[in-house]
Parts: sequence; C-alpha cells; structure tokens
Amino acid sequence: MKTILGKFRYFAVPAFLILFLPCAADEGMWTFDNPPLKPLREKYGFDAGQEWLDHVRLASVRFMDGGSGSFVSPNGLVLTNHHVAVGQLQKMSTAEKDFVSVGFYAAKPEDESPCPDLEVNVLVSMEDVTARVRSAVSDKMNAEQALRAREAEIAAIENECQEKTGLKPEVVRLYHGGEYWLYRYKKYTDIRLVMAPERMAAYYGGDSDNFTFPRYDLDMAFFRVYENGQPVRPEAWLKWNAAGAGEEDLVFVSGHPGSTDRLYTLAQLEYQRDLQYPMILKYIGRRIDILHEYMKAGPEQHRRGLIQLFGLENSKKALSGEYLGLLDPSLFVKKKTEEDALRKTVASKPEWKKAYSGAWKNIEKAVARQRERARHNFYRRVIGSRLYSTANQIAFYTAETVKPESERLDGYHASQLEELKFHLFSPAPVYKDLEEANLAGCLKLSLEELGPDDPFLKLVLNGRTPEAAAADLIRGTGLESVEMRKRLIEGGRAAVDTCRDPLVVLARKLEPTVREGIQWRKKNVESVMSAGTEQIAQAVFAAYGKDQYPDATFTLRLSYGAVRGYPMNGTLAPCKTTLYGLYDRALSFDRKGDFEPPARFWDRLDSLNLATPVNFVSTCDIIGGNSGSPVLNRSGELVGLVFDGNIESLVGRFVYDDAKNRTVAVHSAYIIEALRKLYDASGLADEIEGK
Amino acid sequence: MKTILGKFRYFAVPAFLILFLPCAADEGMWTFDNPPLKPLREKYGFDAGQEWLDHVRLASVRFMDGGSGSFVSPNGLVLTNHHVAVGQLQKMSTAEKDFVSVGFYAAKPEDESPCPDLEVNVLVSMEDVTARVRSAVSDKMNAEQALRAREAEIAAIENECQEKTGLKPEVVRLYHGGEYWLYRYKKYTDIRLVMAPERMAAYYGGDSDNFTFPRYDLDMAFFRVYENGQPVRPEAWLKWNAAGAGEEDLVFVSGHPGSTDRLYTLAQLEYQRDLQYPMILKYIGRRIDILHEYMKAGPEQHRRGLIQLFGLENSKKALSGEYLGLLDPSLFVKKKTEEDALRKTVASKPEWKKAYSGAWKNIEKAVARQRERARHNFYRRVIGSRLYSTANQIAFYTAETVKPESERLDGYHASQLEELKFHLFSPAPVYKDLEEANLAGCLKLSLEELGPDDPFLKLVLNGRTPEAAAADLIRGTGLESVEMRKRLIEGGRAAVDTCRDPLVVLARKLEPTVREGIQWRKKNVESVMSAGTEQIAQAVFAAYGKDQYPDATFTLRLSYGAVRGYPMNGTLAPCKTTLYGLYDRALSFDRKGDFEPPARFWDRLDSLNLATPVNFVSTCDIIGGNSGSPVLNRSGELVGLVFDGNIESLVGRFVYDDAKNRTVAVHSAYIIEALRKLYDASGLADEIEGK
Repeated sequence: MKTILGKFRYFAVPAFLILFLPCAADEGMWTFDNPPLKPLREKYGFDAGQEWLDHVRLASVRFMDGGSGSFVSPNGLVLTNHHVAVGQLQKMSTAEKDFVSVGFYAAKPEDESPCPDLEVNVLVSMEDVTARVRSAVSDKMNAEQALRAREAEIAAIENECQEKTGLKPEVVRLYHGGEYWLYRYKKYTDIRLVMAPERMAAYYGGDSDNFTFPRYDLDMAFFRVYENGQPVRPEAWLKWNAAGAGEEDLVFVSGHPGSTDRLYTLAQLEYQRDLQYPMILKYIGRRIDILHEYMKAGPEQHRRGLIQLFGLENSKKALSGEYLGLLDPSLFVKKKTEEDALRKTVASKPEWKKAYSGAWKNIEKAVARQRERARHNFYRRVIGSRLYSTANQIAFYTAETVKPESERLDGYHASQLEELKFHLFSPAPVYKDLEEANLAGCLKLSLEELGPDDPFLKLVLNGRTPEAAAADLIRGTGLESVEMRKRLIEGGRAAVDTCRDPLVVLARKLEPTVREGIQWRKKNVESVMSAGTEQIAQAVFAAYGKDQYPDATFTLRLSYGAVRGYPMNGTLAPCKTTLYGLYDRALSFDRKGDFEPPARFWDRLDSLNLATPVNFVSTCDIIGGNSGSPVLNRSGELVGLVFDGNIESLVGRFVYDDAKNRTVAVHSAYIIEALRKLYDASGLADEIEGK
Repeated sequence: MKTILGKFRYFAVPAFLILFLPCAADEGMWTFDNPPLKPLREKYGFDAGQEWLDHVRLASVRFMDGGSGSFVSPNGLVLTNHHVAVGQLQKMSTAEKDFVSVGFYAAKPEDESPCPDLEVNVLVSMEDVTARVRSAVSDKMNAEQALRAREAEIAAIENECQEKTGLKPEVVRLYHGGEYWLYRYKKYTDIRLVMAPERMAAYYGGDSDNFTFPRYDLDMAFFRVYENGQPVRPEAWLKWNAAGAGEEDLVFVSGHPGSTDRLYTLAQLEYQRDLQYPMILKYIGRRIDILHEYMKAGPEQHRRGLIQLFGLENSKKALSGEYLGLLDPSLFVKKKTEEDALRKTVASKPEWKKAYSGAWKNIEKAVARQRERARHNFYRRVIGSRLYSTANQIAFYTAETVKPESERLDGYHASQLEELKFHLFSPAPVYKDLEEANLAGCLKLSLEELGPDDPFLKLVLNGRTPEAAAADLIRGTGLESVEMRKRLIEGGRAAVDTCRDPLVVLARKLEPTVREGIQWRKKNVESVMSAGTEQIAQAVFAAYGKDQYPDATFTLRLSYGAVRGYPMNGTLAPCKTTLYGLYDRALSFDRKGDFEPPARFWDRLDSLNLATPVNFVSTCDIIGGNSGSPVLNRSGELVGLVFDGNIESLVGRFVYDDAKNRTVAVHSAYIIEALRKLYDASGLADEIEGK
C-alpha cells in the first residue's frame, strides 16, 4: 500500500482517525462502494443507480501530482484546473516563452504539447480485501509485528494484481483500518496539454481571493490523454451542460479529496494544535520569505519561483484557516462531546469494552511519544531541494530493491517501481539557483531551531555556514542530468557507494539516521496508532453501522449538495457571480496587482455577455485534492468545475458545517463563453459541447 | 439643556462617560472648537485654517429627525440620505401615490413638495458656558440638588439666548460634564423635497446589505430650504467634485453623530451587556414580528408598515453588532486596561486622588440601583403608539408650563416649546390600524414579562386583554385630529383633566407613575452618575490634557481619515465599488427580492458608464446620526455622501479600530451619473455642478 496524500493545496498532515459523525446535512466524501443512497433519496428524491455511479466513476480522473479531473469528450479530452496544470505549464516554459503567463492553445492535434512527467489514473474496479489483510495478522504478534505483517500482505496483493491485470494496484486503508480495499487503476502517462488560459484569468484575485467567494476565476485547463500515440477513447465521459445548475439544484462532486482529519481523537487534535500546525506554519512562512528574496533578482527568477510561491501561499492560507479552527474552543467542545458519547457506548457492552475501550489510551500514549521527537523529526531533515530528494530516493532504491518484497519499505515494492522511476527520470527543468536558495534557507532555519551542536546539523554542515553548504552541495551535484540518475539506478548500490557527487554522498551519510527515524516512528507511533484507530473503527461499525464515510485518502469520492449562497460578513453571499462582477472587482482596485485581468478581457469586453455566470457555490463537502473535479447534475452532466473552497470551509478538515462550508466552482457557461469569445477556441468548445 | 440623541439608525442607549483614549489612528469625532489640528498636520500635512473650518461648519446641516446633510448650492439645496428623507417621503405618500417606492423629482421650483414636519438646523456659533453652569452649583448641595441647579441654570442660559438672538439655543454637555457649551442654531422649518430616487435604488440590497460593504446604494435625497417663501441663500455651501477622492486620499466627514459610549466604566458596560442590550433586542424582535404580521394584510398595510420595519431592522442589525462587541471578552480586557491606567494615574497624586478617585465606586453604586429597576423601567411603559406619546406630552405640557422655569422638566422650558409644538401639531398621517397592532403587541410583551398582577398593567389593561385594551384606546381616541391636540394645549390643564378621550385619560392616570420614575432615576442614578462622570472627565483633562474628543452628542463633529479598503472575510474589500458590481449583485441573486434595482436600471443600462464608482469607504470615525453627512476633500469640496458604516464598525460605539472600521459613502460621480442618465434630472445636476 502506498499512502498517497493529496499534496495539492496543502501540506499533508497525516490522517489517522475514522469518522463516526452522524451524517446530517450534505456532509461526506463517500466511496463509490458505499454511496449516500439514503440521504439522496430522502432529502433530494434522487436514486443513484449503479449505471449512473459507474458512469461518473469511469469519467473521473486522478492527477497523481495531486488533483482531479474528468473526461469531457469521446476523444480523451480531460478538464481540470489551471492550478492543477500549472506545474506542467511551468515545466514546458522557458525564459523566452512562459505559458504560465501567456496561456496556451493548440487548435490542431499536432500542436498539443506533451507533459514532461504527468500521470493520470482512472479507477477501473474495487475489491474488498479486508479479510485477506486481517488474516496476515495473528493474535500473538505485537503492534509492530502486526504492522509489518499487514504491510507485507498488502505488498503481495498489489504485486499479484499488477502481474495479473496490468492495472495499477493500490490497497487503500479506509476508515483508518476499518476496511482495506484493492483499487485497480488504468494509468496514463502520455498526456498532452490542449488549452490553458493566462494565469491572471485563472487565478484572478491572486492569493487575496484564494479560498474566498464571491469569486471570478477561469481556473481551467484542458489535457488530452493519449495511448499508443492516439487520443484515448475513454470508457465514459461527461456530457456538457452549459446552462449550469440553478439555486437549490442538487449537484454532485466526483473527485479525489486528499485528506481529512474529521475524527482525530482529542489527543491527536491537541498534538496538531500545539505542535504540528505552529511548526508547519513557521516553516512555510520561512519558505515564502526565501522565495520573495530569490524572486527579487530579476524577471527570470520571478518566473522560476512563482509557482512554488503560489503553492506555499496557498498552503499558508489553508493551514492558517485550519489552525484557526483548532484554536476555536468550540471545536474541542464538539469533538469531546462526540468522543465521550462513543466511549460511553463502547463501555456499555462488556464485549465492546474488552475489544475497543483501550484504543484511546493507547493513542494517547503514542501521541506522547510523538511529542517527544516532534521538533527533531521536523527539523532534522534536508528540505527544500528536489535534487536532494532525488539523491535520497536513489540511495534507498538501490538498497531496498535488492531485499525480498516483505522486507522492503513502502514505496519500493515491485508494483510501485514504475511510477517511482517515471518521476525520478523526469526531464522537467531543474533551477539550481532556486534549489540553492531554498536549501540554504531551510538549513538556516534548522540551525536556528536545533543549534550548531545538533549531530544532524554537524553532519550536514560539516563546519560550513548553511549558505556555503548549500552552494557546495547544489553547485557540485550533477543530478540535474537524467542520464546520471539512470546510471546510478542501473549501477545499483555499488554505483551509489562509489559515487562522489556531493548530494549522493550526503544522502548515503544520512541514510542510517533516516532509517532509524522511520523505524522509531513505526515502532512507537504508527503501529500503536493504527491499531488504536482500527479498534475505534470497529467500535463505530459495531455501534453505528456503516452509514458513515471514511476520512479522505486521495481516492475517488462522491459528494453531494445544493447550489446555495450563505451568510457572509453581515450579509449574504449569492450562489453565483457574473462577468459584471469581474469588471467591478478590477475597477474597484483600479486594475492593480492581482485584480487586473489579461488584456483580452478589455479588448473583447464589448463582445461578451456580461450576465454570464462565472463561479458558483454548493454545499458539497470537499477538500484539497478535489481541485479539478467535475460538478454534475442529476443527469450526470457537467455543470461546473471545482477549484476551491470558501474561507469558511477550511475548518472542514476537522468538521463540516453546511451553514457556511461551500465548494467553489467555475460555471460551465463561463468556460464556453471564454473559449468562444475570449480565446478563439471554438474548436475546443465545439468538441466539449458535442457540436 | 435638551438631551437630543440621534435616534436614527439605532435606539439610543444613554451615553454617560468621557473619552480618554490616546488618539492614534484616524479616530475621533471632534468638536469644531477643538479640531484635530495636530494629527492632521503630522499625519497628513494638512492645515485646517479657521476659514476652512467655518465654511465646512456653516455648510453642514442637522436634520432634527436624526441625520445630517449639507448645502450643495447657493440656492438652499440640501443633500442628505434617502433613508433620512424616507420618513417625510412616507408622510407625503398615500395608497395611490407612494413616493417611497416610485421616487420623486421636481424639475420646476413650483413642484417642490413641502414636508409636513421637518426641521433642519445650522450651527451658527458656539460659546463655552462651563464656568456659568458650574457656578450654579455649590459645595453644600448633594448630587440631586446639584443636578437640579445645573438644569435650572442651563434652562436660563437657553431662554436668554433665544430672547436675545432669536436663534435656537442648545446647551451641550460635552465630555459628560467636563465642559458645557451653548450652541446657537439657525432653524429652518420650511423644507421642500426636490428629488429622491426609488427606495430600491437607495436601499439596494435591503436589510441584508445594510451595514456592510461592498455596497451599491444610491442613498441620496435633495431638499430645498425656504425662508419667507423663497429659497434660502446659505452662508456657505459645498462645491461639488465629481472626480471624487482616490485611494489613500485624505477626506473629512462633517456631521452629527448621535451617541457613542467609548468610555463607559466597566460597571456601566456590564450593565449594558447583561441587561440593556438583551432587553432592547428582545423588544425590537417583537416589534418586527408585530409588523410582519400587520403587513401581511395587504399592499396598503405593507406600505404603511414598511418604513417602521426598516427602522426596526436597522436597529436590530446595529444593536446586534454592538452587542456582539460587548460579548467579546477582548473588549472588556481593553477597557479594563484603560480604566486601571487612569485610576492608577489618579491615585498617584494626592489632590487628584481626593478629587476624583471616588467616581468609579459611586458610578458602580448607581449602576447597582439601575439594575434593581431595569426590567420594570423597561416594561412599565406604554410603547409602540405615537398617539399615546402625544397624549402623554399634552398632559405633561399642560402641567409643566404653568410652573416657574426652574422647576420644569427638561423638554418643557420656554425655549423648547416652539419645537415641541411643531411636532405635536404635525399634520402627518396617522395609521390607526398600525397604532393598534403595535400597542397590542407591546402590551402583550409587557404582560409576558411582568405578569398580570403588576400594578402598571392592572391600571392599563383594567381587566381587558392587550388586544381589547389597544382596540378601546386607539379606536376610541380622537387624537389623530391636529385640531383636538391644539384645543387641549390651548385649554390647559383644565381641558386635559376634563377630557374623556381614552388615551388622554390613560396618560393622566399614568402621570404619577411616570413622574415617580423620572424622580427616582434622577435621584438614584442620573445625579450620581453625572457627578461621577464629570469627576472622571476632570481627571482625564488633568492627566492627559485636552487632546481628546468628547463622546458623540448629536452635535456637529469633524472626522477625518483616508479612503482605504480593508481585510474582509479572508480577502480584501476594495476602497470603492462600480456600477458593474450593482449588476453583478442583481444577477447573482437572479434579480430577486432586495437585489432587483428599479426598472430604469435595466432600461437605461446601455447608456450608463459602468465604470462609474458607486460607493466608497474611508477610515473616518462615524456613528448613527452621521447619515447624510458630506465627505469632503482637502479643498472642502464634496466628494461623497455618508450613508452607513460597515459591519466591522458597529463595535465603534465602544471602541474604534482603524484596521477595519469604515465609513461607507455614495460617490459624488454616481450621483451625477444617476441624475443625468437614470433620472433625467440634468437641471438638478447642473445646479450642484454649478453649470
């Protein structure tokens, strides 16, 4: 099993706990094997038949970078967000031609632009393997042995699947161990960019407007999926509905929420509040400072740093919102009430009490251990450099892949190697000056936090300043060469052990420390917590049945809700915005900064229908990773494109509140209006409208 | 002295305490005798000369209904808010012709429409009379005697002034007794309506958008002031500047803030939080329910109730915001820090300690007394009926005016009678069905709160249900007749005593109770508190000097600040909005309810310049009563028209925070664009633009 956390829109905070909220309101990110049929029927009079569900599932696409999308034509056209595509846009760009800022449109198939290292997946089938995974564990094992046995069994299931079906396997741990499912994916790696607007149209309002509503963003991008050099004919694709959805209409979101922590125990929540969030926010703040400094140097540096900066600012805003939620005492009151209720229920039956009641105490103990090493674990890392990660992965690859399957670390099982190498050998450009600035800054932060006598820092710095160490390491490495990476992987451990590249040497030296950290964590934290959360999951199933949805795991989920405004800042936010509002916001800020749309918006103002809806909100329950998900109507037609949540939704990592939590989407009508009237892309509009 | 609290936009909560905040930021509602010269010079490099100040003062107008305005042409044209004018608009309207909903424009002088009972004032001169008022009080008097002596002296000053100058006198208690000033006003009562747009243009967004920003309201109305049948030639009037003010420009507001409570002692604030606000909010909520029920009956009932409903909803929103501020523990922390600092300073000098340190304890005692009777004082009143107020005033008039000046209640001194009669004899329509509904509902509330055995209720209801009592009283009264009111006043006490009109009989019966209440309050609360606050005021002058502004008293004040957006709901609010935004908001709500502008906005859409700024915000410090104030630039030109504060400004009753507190104004350009292109009122536009 590979734990893939949606990395997009946030820095993943590990999710360990199960959900046992009574699902009132439009709450929930439901798996396709357990869709919310009952509330849909009772609240909305809607019956989601198996055909409807299969169609939606097969038209949904996962972006392995972090993000979601959907097929929107029979010719493999995929719609997602600009901000999901923007990493690829940057990789395609150069100082001379910056597709991020000017946009891209291939009117003819031959102009479609291959992406350096993009992978998308379609969920083909799912199988419950809980019994098989459980059978690997015996009562005689301690928590650590049990964890190892489970991991080995999962690796075996995944390897078997790949050999038999050729599909990409993923054993998913749902309900934090309550269930294990084998998900089989069709994997595509020949993805070509078809169309993306300018970033200033997609990300209109910038960091200020990010995670807020009312909003006016054209946050879209189109890719085409190829197989064997031809556009793929997907099993399912979504019909376009340019009329969109009206107020109070039932809508759905099908996508890949990254992670939620809706039912951390109180002990885990306190850990997040007291340690994890303050540390991460400090780290992100520093990274932003480093980038601002770097980007000052000139326009090319600005271009190179911009997308990283976006990611960091985005994370900062999201995490700050989540952190504010944690600081609100009412959240803890709510959580405590729920936890107390469950524990009381568990205590009410002797067999439940025996089987489950120890879980909370055990998790509390594991959290206590976690606290001990929290700061060390955070700052004793070489962070900020992609090249160092590459060196580290090469070192581990050569060490792990010679071991028998059952002894390998997760990430290095046979079935995972193809994907690992796809990323390891990515030809995407590496900006060494940016790498150096990031590495120096992050080492400096570690030095401030740990002091010069820390053994980790002594090893890394070796008497040098952070700046000098970063310069030596980054300027001295040759790992920007894909050829060199391939040579090392092919040469195996011997090649790594004799390599004199400074980053490879450092990775080798740090390997024992890293391994010790992983083992320590597995033994003292992960094994205990996963046993505890699994017990709680079983307690919940026993007590409340399976009218539950699991915490998000970057796997396909179905959310539902109504198109609806909400109370905001003393007044009402409407359920949608229009093009009039885009111009209002531009002129309200005197067309300054992030509030100046691209020139074509002014040049073609007269040709636009300003009443066109631009963005709209619904009560659907989503989180980072859902970016790019389609919004669907009852007929399974596409009426919108998810690109954000409102500021009130950020606390949604921990609790969902349908009074204010909203999904923000691009309206289907705006996409058509923009393609036809702003971007001269009628060919593309015709394709998605089936004309 | 008459205590005139701005009643507009809120239910007045008595203000007793002085302000001794260090005035950083753009804080303060400054008197024209003590303008903020220092911060203006230091922060904005602006020197407000005496000429500039006199000009602004003489161009400023007070609406005695509650509200502000300014002369904007040499021919007596006055600009104010639609919501300041709306009471008069309703009084002019009938079931057949509703000027509130369709608007009004007199293109020719002869079409200008006289107002039934509107009075406006211009502040002609000011004189410090502190020494004279103080001299009336001797050390041998107790607090109650001192209060009475001061009141008698003030009445004498006011009477003298009126006799000598013919001007309207008002002795104003500033700094809660730190100073007394005689303000002399030129009074006008022949006021004619020139222009008002439809309410849906003025109050676009309705109660939802009230007290919020971004905003798109044309909240304006034009009157012309007449004297001797001719348009008055005002001493000063404001030049129009249709370019308006840009971001960060220095601007001023000259107007009449009603009341603030910026430096209540902690004891007083707790009283407000624990008793006053919950009671008032409950009462207003009930009044709103009564009105909704009444207005359901038909379109004419809807028309009759609408403006009262507006006032109540407006108060509810304002008071709710203030109450939320009081419930925020950080407000009390801030207030406690300030109070502790002042008390420590006072304690540091023996002479200060002796003179002032007892004040807080005395106020605390008075508050304790106030608490005892709070609920009784609130519910033992006949409220909700204008006709009952009239009866009550007639009874008191005939009793008070036969007494010597020094023994009369405030409101019945010789210099106050003209104005009292102006309102008492107003020919404005009275809707008896609405009076009855209100009276019945309010009696019902008192019954719920006090129970059937309460002596007040026994007296009022006399065995009847609230509904039956209200029906008897309102249907049986003839007081809607101005003639009858005149006859009673002219007939004196004998006429009142023999009158068998049920409302007059009730007023007569309740008179002893009302008098007892007034005396009890004077003796136990007012006299002690006013002595205490006066001591604190003197302590502040001693400790901090006079770089202070007094709490608002519905007298002319100058505020200053910059045109500036603010952080809002996770993003930025711009400093202005445009016409594009009005259409966006309309279409965002599918043109429903309060978000549908009048038809002319659609009919003439093509002719409008949608980039026209509509509303804008500044850091100027204002509160209810400032409605209709001009916004001025450095040259004293009119660049805007104050009509609201943002939701973040509501806590401004207690504290000012320049990070978020904003004044919301109509942009001068929108007024011109609307007059010329929407309302075919180019004549009026020419007049104010001096063309």
